[in-house]
Amino acid sequence: MKFSTQELMEGIRSGNKRLIAKAITLVESKKEEHRRQAEELLKELMHFTGNSVRVGVTGVPGAGKSTFIENFGRLAIANGKKVAVLAIDPSSAINKGSILGDKTRMEELAKEENAFIRPSPSSGFLGGVANTTFETMMICEAAGYDYILIETVGVGQSEVLVADITDVFLFLKIIGGGDELQGIKRGIMEMVDLIFINKVDKDNLQKAKNTRLELKRALDFIPPKEKGWKVPVLFGSALSNEGLDEVFQKINEFISLKKKTHRFEEVRKQQAEKRYEYWVQEYILSAMKKSNSLEEAYLQHKKNASALVFNPSTEAKLFVEKFLSEN
Amino acid sequence: MKFSTQELMEGIRSGNKRLIAKAITLVESKKEEHRRQAEELLKELMHFTGNSVRVGVTGVPGAGKSTFIENFGRLAIANGKKVAVLAIDPSSAINKGSILGDKTRMEELAKEENAFIRPSPSSGFLGGVANTTFETMMICEAAGYDYILIETVGVGQSEVLVADITDVFLFLKIIGGGDELQGIKRGIMEMVDLIFINKVDKDNLQKAKNTRLELKRALDFIPPKEKGWKVPVLFGSALSNEGLDEVFQKINEFISLKKKTHRFEEVRKQQAEKRYEYWVQEYILSAMKKSNSLEEAYLQHKKNASALVFNPSTEAKLFVEKFLSEN
Repeated sequence: MKFSTQELMEGIRSGNKRLIAKAITLVESKKEEHRRQAEELLKELMHFTGNSVRVGVTGVPGAGKSTFIENFGRLAIANGKKVAVLAIDPSSAINKGSILGDKTRMEELAKEENAFIRPSPSSGFLGGVANTTFETMMICEAAGYDYILIETVGVGQSEVLVADITDVFLFLKIIGGGDELQGIKRGIMEMVDLIFINKVDKDNLQKAKNTRLELKRALDFIPPKEKGWKVPVLFGSALSNEGLDEVFQKINEFISLKKKTHRFEEVRKQQAEKRYEYWVQEYILSAMKKSNSLEEAYLQHKKNASALVFNPSTEAKLFVEKFLSEN
Repeated sequence: MKFSTQELMEGIRSGNKRLIAKAITLVESKKEEHRRQAEELLKELMHFTGNSVRVGVTGVPGAGKSTFIENFGRLAIANGKKVAVLAIDPSSAINKGSILGDKTRMEELAKEENAFIRPSPSSGFLGGVANTTFETMMICEAAGYDYILIETVGVGQSEVLVADITDVFLFLKIIGGGDELQGIKRGIMEMVDLIFINKVDKDNLQKAKNTRLELKRALDFIPPKEKGWKVPVLFGSALSNEGLDEVFQKINEFISLKKKTHRFEEVRKQQAEKRYEYWVQEYILSAMKKSNSLEEAYLQHKKNASALVFNPSTEAKLFVEKFLSEN
């Protein structure tokens, strides 16, 4: 890395986008020396974090997430806010093209002085996705961004991870073929704080109202996530900027409520503990990964367990003994 | 332990209840020498496992779980089956009385030659509950029990754990005060394979029908857990043996379906892998626990993370470095 921690620090604090991007590359790196500098940097930056509203956005491909984020971001900027966009794309490790695709789709937002857009790579052993997004978020907060929008493409466990690092979780829905709940991933409805039915116009207004009714009924069957908050089901068109002001307003209402009930800080503390536990596991796993033979042993013992003729706990013990003896 | 592995093995295989109980005590022990013998034993027993139907039973206190299990167990025995009952009670570590309470409540079943009843203690570092229930189940299977009923009192994450080691998950419901879905724990409805509305008689039959309707509607809003299986909502009275034969039949239907679609074995393999991952973590945690200073360090770094002024991943790294250097 060509920049000193001090230089990166100052660059971030003064809002220098090039240095913000450099710092993010640093925290995303798996090289030990980079990791060391990243931790040095984060240690300094932590004092300047915590002041943004962290918004998770999910929805099936085609729900219009990029357009929503672009125009919602511009609305927030028009309201005097600074907006950072992070995308979690588990496919990015394989297909770099899809990220660039996303990036160019948000070109109007990218032109804004008060916007910062960054795709986030997937990474991690054993299916961990975007485990550095939390730290990227810290950098953006220290750089003074007021709203941090985190997009998830909804593959695997990515929604859970995003819900675990954000203050408000948004679900974009498009009108389906009648059975509106079909196709909604298990568990999503229990995670959401706000639903926006997108791509609604004059022609499908009645359908949108039916969809809303069905979603509201489904929500009635789910215990509330935050006391005193009834998940709003809004609709409009992100492309024509219809309904986005209402979303903006509802998000702010929700954040105010959580601050009033002290749940805002409470949840963030729980999230930090979860992050810690996640990283303890991750660092132990990466110690395992250092040697190919350990990783192979891990998988072989797992395979033995899965064959149903070996006791899982015995296999686990054999592996952990090997692991501890080699460290 | 006074018995050799061979003696325990033979005792289990011949259905000697006293030796079955001894073997369970062995796998529940945290002493290293017991653990070693337990693994020796399980290694031999694994070849004789896999042949039971594993049934998880949950419901709020007062739903009649013990009565249900007792009379359902007797019904299965009347059908020529052998039944083992394991109870997961996270309070047992503190309150041994409640287990004995449960035990005596099932005294009719306990008298049966073909029944075996065993409460299961909670244990584990960092909130792990009843992590040896899986192994206790292996012992019961090797002893030839056809149905293994696992009761959970529904505290904390116990349902998830039980759902993760069983083939069919049953939810006992009693008729509530009108809003039937209030009071159902988050996530339960997505886990169940069968619902039984208990304590229904002539006087509350109409209410039971309303409850059933409401539960069925709620289920319509939940993506199916097993393809081709619509969760049945049955009702009756466990105390008067009404409706239990239908439950027995539906469980067998469900198992047949899962076997036909090969989901039965597939899910068990996934469960075994999960168990393996669980135990890898558990053995690493127990290596941490060996030293008080390590456990204190773990908690102190976690506290730092939760204070929101230290970076969770840095705290995790500091801890893992300490841990690996001491092992």
